[in-house]
Amino acid sequence: MIHNVIAMSLLIRNGLLITPRRVLRADVKIVNGVITEMGVGLSTSGVDEVIDASGMLVLPGVIDEHVHMREPGLEYKDDFTHGTRAALKGGVTTVIEHPNTLPPVEDPGKLASKARPLESKAYVDYALLGVLHDGNIHLFEDIVAAGAVGFKIFMGPTTGNIPPPSDSSLYEALSKSGRTGVTIAFHAEDHSLVTYFTEKVKAGGGMDPWLHIEARPPITEEYSIVKIATIAKQTHGRVLIVHISSIEALEAVRKARSEGVEIYGETCPHYLVLDKVDYQKHGSLIKVNPPIRGGIHRERLLEAVGNGLIDTLGSDHAPHTPEEKKRDIWSAASGIPGVQTLLPIMLDLALRNVFPLTRVPALLSENPAKLWGLWPRKGSIDIGFDGDLVVVDPGGETVVTEEWLEYKYKLSPYIGWRLKGRIRYAILRGMVIYRDGVITDKPVGKWIRPVKL
Amino acid sequence: MIHNVIAMSLLIRNGLLITPRRVLRADVKIVNGVITEMGVGLSTSGVDEVIDASGMLVLPGVIDEHVHMREPGLEYKDDFTHGTRAALKGGVTTVIEHPNTLPPVEDPGKLASKARPLESKAYVDYALLGVLHDGNIHLFEDIVAAGAVGFKIFMGPTTGNIPPPSDSSLYEALSKSGRTGVTIAFHAEDHSLVTYFTEKVKAGGGMDPWLHIEARPPITEEYSIVKIATIAKQTHGRVLIVHISSIEALEAVRKARSEGVEIYGETCPHYLVLDKVDYQKHGSLIKVNPPIRGGIHRERLLEAVGNGLIDTLGSDHAPHTPEEKKRDIWSAASGIPGVQTLLPIMLDLALRNVFPLTRVPALLSENPAKLWGLWPRKGSIDIGFDGDLVVVDPGGETVVTEEWLEYKYKLSPYIGWRLKGRIRYAILRGMVIYRDGVITDKPVGKWIRPVKL
Amino acid sequence: MIHNVIAMSLLIRNGLLITPRRVLRADVKIVNGVITEMGVGLSTSGVDEVIDASGMLVLPGVIDEHVHMREPGLEYKDDFTHGTRAALKGGVTTVIEHPNTLPPVEDPGKLASKARPLESKAYVDYALLGVLHDGNIHLFEDIVAAGAVGFKIFMGPTTGNIPPPSDSSLYEALSKSGRTGVTIAFHAEDHSLVTYFTEKVKAGGGMDPWLHIEARPPITEEYSIVKIATIAKQTHGRVLIVHISSIEALEAVRKARSEGVEIYGETCPHYLVLDKVDYQKHGSLIKVNPPIRGGIHRERLLEAVGNGLIDTLGSDHAPHTPEEKKRDIWSAASGIPGVQTLLPIMLDLALRNVFPLTRVPALLSENPAKLWGLWPRKGSIDIGFDGDLVVVDPGGETVVTEEWLEYKYKLSPYIGWRLKGRIRYAILRGMVIYRDGVITDKPVGKWIRPVKL
Amino acid sequence: MIHNVIAMSLLIRNGLLITPRRVLRADVKIVNGVITEMGVGLSTSGVDEVIDASGMLVLPGVIDEHVHMREPGLEYKDDFTHGTRAALKGGVTTVIEHPNTLPPVEDPGKLASKARPLESKAYVDYALLGVLHDGNIHLFEDIVAAGAVGFKIFMGPTTGNIPPPSDSSLYEALSKSGRTGVTIAFHAEDHSLVTYFTEKVKAGGGMDPWLHIEARPPITEEYSIVKIATIAKQTHGRVLIVHISSIEALEAVRKARSEGVEIYGETCPHYLVLDKVDYQKHGSLIKVNPPIRGGIHRERLLEAVGNGLIDTLGSDHAPHTPEEKKRDIWSAASGIPGVQTLLPIMLDLALRNVFPLTRVPALLSENPAKLWGLWPRKGSIDIGFDGDLVVVDPGGETVVTEEWLEYKYKLSPYIGWRLKGRIRYAILRGMVIYRDGVITDKPVGKWIRPVKL
Ligand SMILES: [Zn+2]
Ligand SMILES: [Zn+2]
Ligand SMILES: [Zn+2]
Ligand SMILES: [Zn+2]
Ligand SMILES: [Zn+2]
Ligand SMILES: [Zn+2]
Ligand SMILES: [Zn+2]
Ligand SMILES: [Zn+2]
Repeated sequence: MIHNVIAMSLLIRNGLLITPRRVLRADVKIVNGVITEMGVGLSTSGVDEVIDASGMLVLPGVIDEHVHMREPGLEYKDDFTHGTRAALKGGVTTVIEHPNTLPPVEDPGKLASKARPLESKAYVDYALLGVLHDGNIHLFEDIVAAGAVGFKIFMGPTTGNIPPPSDSSLYEALSKSGRTGVTIAFHAEDHSLVTYFTEKVKAGGGMDPWLHIEARPPITEEYSIVKIATIAKQTHGRVLIVHISSIEALEAVRKARSEGVEIYGETCPHYLVLDKVDYQKHGSLIKVNPPIRGGIHRERLLEAVGNGLIDTLGSDHAPHTPEEKKRDIWSAASGIPGVQTLLPIMLDLALRNVFPLTRVPALLSENPAKLWGLWPRKGSIDIGFDGDLVVVDPGGETVVTEEWLEYKYKLSPYIGWRLKGRIRYAILRGMVIYRDGVITDKPVGKWIRPVKL
Repeated sequence: MIHNVIAMSLLIRNGLLITPRRVLRADVKIVNGVITEMGVGLSTSGVDEVIDASGMLVLPGVIDEHVHMREPGLEYKDDFTHGTRAALKGGVTTVIEHPNTLPPVEDPGKLASKARPLESKAYVDYALLGVLHDGNIHLFEDIVAAGAVGFKIFMGPTTGNIPPPSDSSLYEALSKSGRTGVTIAFHAEDHSLVTYFTEKVKAGGGMDPWLHIEARPPITEEYSIVKIATIAKQTHGRVLIVHISSIEALEAVRKARSEGVEIYGETCPHYLVLDKVDYQKHGSLIKVNPPIRGGIHRERLLEAVGNGLIDTLGSDHAPHTPEEKKRDIWSAASGIPGVQTLLPIMLDLALRNVFPLTRVPALLSENPAKLWGLWPRKGSIDIGFDGDLVVVDPGGETVVTEEWLEYKYKLSPYIGWRLKGRIRYAILRGMVIYRDGVITDKPVGKWIRPVKL
Repeated sequence: MIHNVIAMSLLIRNGLLITPRRVLRADVKIVNGVITEMGVGLSTSGVDEVIDASGMLVLPGVIDEHVHMREPGLEYKDDFTHGTRAALKGGVTTVIEHPNTLPPVEDPGKLASKARPLESKAYVDYALLGVLHDGNIHLFEDIVAAGAVGFKIFMGPTTGNIPPPSDSSLYEALSKSGRTGVTIAFHAEDHSLVTYFTEKVKAGGGMDPWLHIEARPPITEEYSIVKIATIAKQTHGRVLIVHISSIEALEAVRKARSEGVEIYGETCPHYLVLDKVDYQKHGSLIKVNPPIRGGIHRERLLEAVGNGLIDTLGSDHAPHTPEEKKRDIWSAASGIPGVQTLLPIMLDLALRNVFPLTRVPALLSENPAKLWGLWPRKGSIDIGFDGDLVVVDPGGETVVTEEWLEYKYKLSPYIGWRLKGRIRYAILRGMVIYRDGVITDKPVGKWIRPVKL
Repeated sequence: MIHNVIAMSLLIRNGLLITPRRVLRADVKIVNGVITEMGVGLSTSGVDEVIDASGMLVLPGVIDEHVHMREPGLEYKDDFTHGTRAALKGGVTTVIEHPNTLPPVEDPGKLASKARPLESKAYVDYALLGVLHDGNIHLFEDIVAAGAVGFKIFMGPTTGNIPPPSDSSLYEALSKSGRTGVTIAFHAEDHSLVTYFTEKVKAGGGMDPWLHIEARPPITEEYSIVKIATIAKQTHGRVLIVHISSIEALEAVRKARSEGVEIYGETCPHYLVLDKVDYQKHGSLIKVNPPIRGGIHRERLLEAVGNGLIDTLGSDHAPHTPEEKKRDIWSAASGIPGVQTLLPIMLDLALRNVFPLTRVPALLSENPAKLWGLWPRKGSIDIGFDGDLVVVDPGGETVVTEEWLEYKYKLSPYIGWRLKGRIRYAILRGMVIYRDGVITDKPVGKWIRPVKL
């Protein structure tokens, strides 16, 4: 048990700072939660706590921009306490909670009544997205004013059964995004096409788990992205396509971007490290939307993570109960918990040179912060930013075990994996909330609202 | 009154044949309805009738691929008798009748019960399109087997209130098109966006007729085309975008084509010869969907007609009653009758060198014939083709008057126009059905079914 | 020996006419060299000769747009007599002779002094290209006036050592092409890059014949085409890229076309039917520029021939002596004779359904005629066109033997090949110049000058 | 006269730091030339000098990546002493000197013999480019090893008459760039086309200065860029196109980039603030290559500076004598001095909101540093970087006068201009080299070699 985690001032010494722009050795001083000094050989006098990060990597705290913590309304799957404890053990100091809880976050009142109770349970900082659908686009500005950092639109079926928007709602929503600069995240699988292909495949009678791939072929993503991009070009909307899983989706994003559309792309660790063969081992456990396609899709996604076609990584943390995941492929729930393994998996890939280490803070901290209006408060190790840091031992190892996982249900395909790199400290606004396996005893996370509109 | 129009054999001598590939002076002999001989100085011995076409242009009979004759169910607007008499006076020897009559042509039975009664009223040959919507795509092959030469899908609101297809219906329909090679014509204005913009503009309170343009901006066409093209690329569907009215629509077609999509484009005379200023004179009379935009859109469309980006011209003949057209811009019916002026207007443009004369048979005969499965029976002056010809005096003039127009209601914006060129004869399968102002006394048109599937 | 080949009138009956637009059974009458009548059951009365083509295919005479007959100046390699006799046995009734003879056709005088002597040797009709280089672009119009149907520019090294043009000459030449509509054919291999890669590969010391591929990689074609297309876009020049051999070249043509450049593409039979493995068997015999690359390049070229990305086929008939071809790969002369096998190979591919039979007259007759200003005189079976026809027995077979080949030296990689289809008659302006193995006894070919400028 | 400018430690307090990523108020401490601490309220104890920057903007020192200081060999035009004194008064703390001096920097020896003597004259830091041409590409690596930070290739005519490279040299040079990651800057005007158009325009006999525009139309830039990009795509070369002056050049860069080519674009202040009308006032004084085109080109360049299509700004500082600039437009020398006005003009545009202030350090410091291998030493206000800063009073004004200009000849079109913003201090590696109008008394600049290869 850690006591007195709130140091008035904290100095992290001699760490190797990993930033998107370079790697350097420097000290970082945090006073009252904010980085106030950086330098070489900073004085320790008057500092409440000094952490010696010699031989360690220091990264900005991770912003997991894509989590479904399931509270309120679906706490039987998992809850905010478990979720944010898992987050901090994984180096995540801020989560962006998606709005498809029960009730969905569709008006200012529901935003507030979701956000406030979480504050007493949050082990890390959190921000909230609102949802947009045909019925509430007129509330866009009000929901932002109430504290949403952005929106989610579900173009296809999802947990919570939010219907896809009409084309005119899409136009109206993206127009408002264009006028305000507020980002909209899209679950871009076309509802109608997904239903069409799923019925076709199910009609075939097969029950092999990998049939999930055929039930949601890449055209379902591509079609959805093409729609969004065509309207965003006209309206100057600001778009994030979440959980890109296919070459076709990547190409649609690339083309739109080359025509001047402000469109960003996210992918998730499971599309990068799992493959088609894993359905044999895990079955419905790795059922997720869009599906894990593997093969050449996986290769091109890894490439895109390295070369900047992909801008952000999110975990799409989406826990379910064992019962919901044990069913056959057509009945099982879609989603995998992942907030705790997001950074460990990305660190492992970088430490094995799949992409440069400097891509990690770009994908996991700086870009999400900029996208979601948290910049220049979160997302970077710089003067004036929140003192959110992760200290990593690059020579250490992370072993994914049931014990290590903080989820309510330990339903991870990664159990047993040994990953390069080990998180030593997680620091939130200058507070050491995780220290060598031990979690702080108090949930000190706060609700983060937009820096400005 | 003409008697005995059915010549067993007919020889057209010394005319200048206008074909997409060249201009040449030659005789054409038609025996039992079919072109059997072409040549220089063909023998007249044993020929029933000889027409001397010296100094005349001979064109293949026009296929107006886009007419709404209003029968059955809407005969109060106009009917097949009036419509096909108007057609032949305009040099149209085949019409392709669109399916949004009452009831709509949505199953094999309705196709047959629409087609058969028309035979006794048809002054020109006719072919029928079926309509596709969410409820009948499984009947695609049956409707073709029953005699449809292709299909129409309405992406936006139209006379007859046929709802737009779901995305999966679109996919299914285009898949069937890809497998069978049957063309689908699209009224490509997005239903949802049209509604959205119309409500916005109406809410502004204005009643100026040209506000119709703002109620259906180019994005409504572009968005619709992008959707269709994305799915056609995947399914290899064969697509015609009818009544293209904007640069944005042209560009969307061009891009899709350069990516290998089999997509064709139609425009209509009213987009080429009317302009924004005409709303002042004609008001709701020229209300049509998509709207006449004029200006740079008109210029680029004329260019596209000349350079081949546009493949076909259709009249989009769509008559209404005077009462329906006299209302204010928001209440008036959309549509202009045009089957009789289609060729006269195109000839006038060509004779004034806006585009080459050889483009006329390409746009009005050969390309529609190929698109709609009438090739190699209709659409060309060649051995074995139907003897459908129009003989034109290039030095003559066509004056559009109420008397000349055969429509039930003379609601044409072209009344009073003087056009270069005068139609002297229209010949259908070797029968002279129009001769210097006089129409044949019998409706000899036939129902044309697909040459083969 | 055939006597009296010049029939005043000739009737080909009951053949199946193969045209780019359709297949039909009809008779064709040729009077005084020109097609005067076509029809079903034409009268034979007064006709000098009737050929019964029942069960036969009738194609327009082939225009081999790419031959190097080697006369004048290089008759030791081959000559016009041998070349045009080979042509007619291969169904070629017109050849377009390229200008890199000795002296090269670089001014009006040299054009005339090349063209005139050939008339007494020509067994088929012929047209001539001029060459353009830094020294003679001011003569462009004069060379056309003297009778050239177009030009050739060598961007890379060739027989005759004509230096590549400077960028400004390229601009000037394409400007003149744009103003006059006269086509320029480009041997598009960049001179400088070819030299660079050849020296690199030779420096490696290898002598394997297939190293020729590495000495001229696709970038040498692509780079050259990109240059040409960039300038043609600006100047509206009319461009043919001859002997396309790679995917990269195809893609460069496709991109330029989608940006509105008037650019056409030719490939040659050897790129379609030979493959990398043939270097083992034939060595330097199949050394040609650009090189035969095989594999995926061959597949994509066959696809492009079918889908219209490739517009024309030429043989690039380029004979050399046995001594010149027997040398090692670096010393051997580049070029393969091919005028006699052009149509047989293409027919064989079509009869084996690699592409539709209707593509053959498009690629070999209509498109070359249009490209080189021979339209509407050559290239089609139509009233008013020259009576140039080939009658083919689709059930017969062509066996390529030394005896069959009319070349001075029988250096063909196709010896021993058995091809589907057999040419029965070749007819030039109504004269039967080839009849079941027997060649006419007189060279009746004529010099064809541009139809009009 | 300033004495003792070398402070061991310097603290800039309370300034508003302007960085590409954000604006923040913080102190910066520089010790022994390097930024060692940044923070809020840093202690002043033990600091040798404190500059109070309250109310001031603090920018990273400008890297003018494009200067021709004319030494050695052309000192009659201007020299390094004058040039670097002008630089520092303009906030430029590092210049990248281009290689077309006499002799040109074409081998390691000439690099060293150019670089060393400058050290005693340099008032700011400097780096050197080598030149590449047909004769020295084999020396690429040696020239880098001798200290060049990159290369220049002249595709068109320039001061020093360096001939353009052959296509194979271009290929070889870009291959080496691809392998080493060393950037090549291209003067991208096609030599052959420039000559062609210039002769054409001169032949017209006109002497109006603006005919210079017609003598070098945009196709000369576009063609050159297309060549470079086609080869860079193949070789993975790293390309900077300097002094982009036209829409066509911008578009060529944009297209290449969207195909994955690593290509960057520079423009110069004179293309942004001068227009066609200025030829009337200034005549040959503003003759520069490529020409100032004004109008829509200027508008789109300003847009591109704002939206990131343009990556860097360089002055293309290119002084000549009054005699050389007073001649008629065809005889006058091309080039304008500009190192002193680069930052003042860009600040003025930003302070008038033409583009955001944060674009200034991106375009003038960070991007050039990254492009030329000076990162992470130059180009940013960050721990470990050189202490190169400019302190600007945003409420002040810069009046361009002959007295203010440090050039040998005061031949600037900007004389008399009043620009928003006033430079108060220029700091080089912690030394205050410019303080309120007064220049340091010693040339303390150093030769900067690549940070690493
Ligand atoms: Zn989702
Ligand atoms: Zn999700
Ligand atoms: Zn319509
Ligand atoms: Zn219609
Ligand atoms: Zn060649
Ligand atoms: Zn050749
Ligand atoms: Zn330059
Ligand atoms: Zn320069």
